[in-house]
Amino acid sequence: MIGIGLLGHGVVGGGVAEILRNNRDSILERTGQDIGLAAVCDLRDFSHLPYASLFTRDAYAVTGNEDVQVVVECMGGIEPARSFVLDAIRHGKHVVTSNKALVADSGEEISRLAEERGVRFLYEASAGGGIPVIQPLRQCLAANRLNHIAGILNGTTNYILTRMRDGGVSFQAALKEAQQLGYAEQDPSADIQGDDARRKICILSHVAFGSPFDDSDIFTQGIAELSREDMLYARELGRAVKLLAVADLSGDGWRALVAPAMLPADHPLSSVNDVFNAVLVHGDMVDDVLFYGRGAGARPTASAIVGDLVDIALHPNDPPLCVEKRHLSKLPALGGMTRLFLRVLCPLEEKGAEVQRIFPGARLVRLDGPSFAGEFAVITEEGEEAALRACVDALPLPHGAVLRYASV
Amino acid sequence: MIGIGLLGHGVVGGGVAEILRNNRDSILERTGQDIGLAAVCDLRDFSHLPYASLFTRDAYAVTGNEDVQVVVECMGGIEPARSFVLDAIRHGKHVVTSNKALVADSGEEISRLAEERGVRFLYEASAGGGIPVIQPLRQCLAANRLNHIAGILNGTTNYILTRMRDGGVSFQAALKEAQQLGYAEQDPSADIQGDDARRKICILSHVAFGSPFDDSDIFTQGIAELSREDMLYARELGRAVKLLAVADLSGDGWRALVAPAMLPADHPLSSVNDVFNAVLVHGDMVDDVLFYGRGAGARPTASAIVGDLVDIALHPNDPPLCVEKRHLSKLPALGGMTRLFLRVLCPLEEKGAEVQRIFPGARLVRLDGPSFAGEFAVITEEGEEAALRACVDALPLPHGAVLRYASV
Repeated sequence: MIGIGLLGHGVVGGGVAEILRNNRDSILERTGQDIGLAAVCDLRDFSHLPYASLFTRDAYAVTGNEDVQVVVECMGGIEPARSFVLDAIRHGKHVVTSNKALVADSGEEISRLAEERGVRFLYEASAGGGIPVIQPLRQCLAANRLNHIAGILNGTTNYILTRMRDGGVSFQAALKEAQQLGYAEQDPSADIQGDDARRKICILSHVAFGSPFDDSDIFTQGIAELSREDMLYARELGRAVKLLAVADLSGDGWRALVAPAMLPADHPLSSVNDVFNAVLVHGDMVDDVLFYGRGAGARPTASAIVGDLVDIALHPNDPPLCVEKRHLSKLPALGGMTRLFLRVLCPLEEKGAEVQRIFPGARLVRLDGPSFAGEFAVITEEGEEAALRACVDALPLPHGAVLRYASV
Repeated sequence: MIGIGLLGHGVVGGGVAEILRNNRDSILERTGQDIGLAAVCDLRDFSHLPYASLFTRDAYAVTGNEDVQVVVECMGGIEPARSFVLDAIRHGKHVVTSNKALVADSGEEISRLAEERGVRFLYEASAGGGIPVIQPLRQCLAANRLNHIAGILNGTTNYILTRMRDGGVSFQAALKEAQQLGYAEQDPSADIQGDDARRKICILSHVAFGSPFDDSDIFTQGIAELSREDMLYARELGRAVKLLAVADLSGDGWRALVAPAMLPADHPLSSVNDVFNAVLVHGDMVDDVLFYGRGAGARPTASAIVGDLVDIALHPNDPPLCVEKRHLSKLPALGGMTRLFLRVLCPLEEKGAEVQRIFPGARLVRLDGPSFAGEFAVITEEGEEAALRACVDALPLPHGAVLRYASV
């Protein structure tokens, strides 16, 4: 048996324990690997569980446990998770985590130590939840030079945007619904402001492009400023609004950003709704590939963790997922070409000409109906995003949230 | 260097050679594996190529070549491909193939010999082309009991259906377009009649459910009977028409079928258009996962083959992908629950009551416009598919093509 030491028996950790108990036989049948729970650390009382005897409150009793070959970290946050993970590796344990904050912040450091100690460090569940994406990027698509990733990486915001777009509800009402359904935390700021998506695109970029990134370098715009009227424009224009996380490799430079975008109906990400996540990847040989599924939740996330456990059981000596292999320079975060959508909260007759002077190639849109009285929208010409945003910021007129207006 | 012996230097084999020559450095950088072409068998003249010295017309000079560790079979068809592959395995070579006819027909036999000889037999490219699906099913989703697969597995028919639905062109015109664009063969019958999709769902079922299937057991309905009017109904009903390949596991029984289906707009497969393929998989832990990409073409298919080569280079001793692990009984091919859509080519006033007697719970639909004069459509109540189809066959009225009418 391959013994698993679990740090944290919350939503995700509990899911891992459930799978290892309920599907142990089918995993053995399908992979030939017998993977079982050996120790669990959690500060809470789980004495009612049939495997209560495996619990300890001392994380180091797991990381140093001789019955444990792989430590699964499901605590969340950077410290003390980082210290426990490093200790496990120093004890010669492989490590699997679903903790995106830890991987985005300390992934390179942990990977280096794991390489040095000859153990594996995997984190499929940290980006895209249950969706198999890191392993396929690394191995199945190894023939390709990957140069583009676009993802819907946060289920909470995608649920809110879907409800706003298709249900016509306000941001606040959609957020409240998401909280009632358990899709959003009581403090939803990491989701809403785009920080969660930023960590995940940072992780996926590292795997795809082979160079670690500092996620604080990633321009991030959340969705809290989006209004019901923005969604009505999107509907009228036949577009969906999504919080997109994008990363591009261009020569030896990379850039990434997180921002809401209006996608045309035939964009592969436009029909990804509710709490579902998806990752679109472009490779020079395979063209576009998309992976879709549940980006959160106990069982989907635990499914990805157990997939990593199977990988380790089969391949304990595989080379590291990624330790820096090449140096990529950081391109200006907003240097890419795009178009922006913005609403100008003044009548078209009064201010249209002025806006057209600032954005000479822009398309001005006015919609009928009381929601749109006294305002119009602007879809800019394609240009450098930084320059376009600077023009918007300098616009001497009241305006609403700014969205990227993506072509296919 | 890991030496590759290529059988067949056509569209796909040429793509493999291109990747191994052009992306060899990036593959080495990303995976640590140096994979290079060692020998190529093709009967045609390739003396103009820079690697012409690697060519032979004798397949056995590849399968027995001591510089070759992995034989890549890209010839297509069952024989002589099967004999060459078996010979390669007897010589201790790993084998990778994109040949779905070979895998559907002889996959179990080849897998058994490979297991016996301690070599690997992989075929990611045989179902879903460039899309990583077999490897993720096997490893990333190993935590799950997989119980449902639904795929758009044939790019030719998906292109034709997309053009018929969105472009309003006839089947014949769409087929001609597909042929002109190189998406359809001059003899398109294997695609149009659903045989290609049937082989692929057979392969995916084997990987997902762990038991080999005889693909002649799979009910298969093609798309040649679909008309422009069928597509107009689909548009009016807000649905897409797709050739779906479906497989279900239920207890210890399985069933699979290939048939055109009307999908609602919020079905994850409904927006898979043109030559793109997609595979939706349901697991008990991960819920729905979808993989999307190009199902054919030189480079995408070769990308999947090279992914398999990387897998073998990293893991030459992995257990077999699937050799029969459990016995599943065949359920009646049409035993599942569904609804059917059919057009009755008689006026509703004359025949509506009679049809309603035969399908008591059915919804009768009449659309306006000259295309629909003198006819109506029937959406049956949910029932056992075999019973519903028997009623349709016994209907004493002229009717058009029958489509499954899928709910989400």
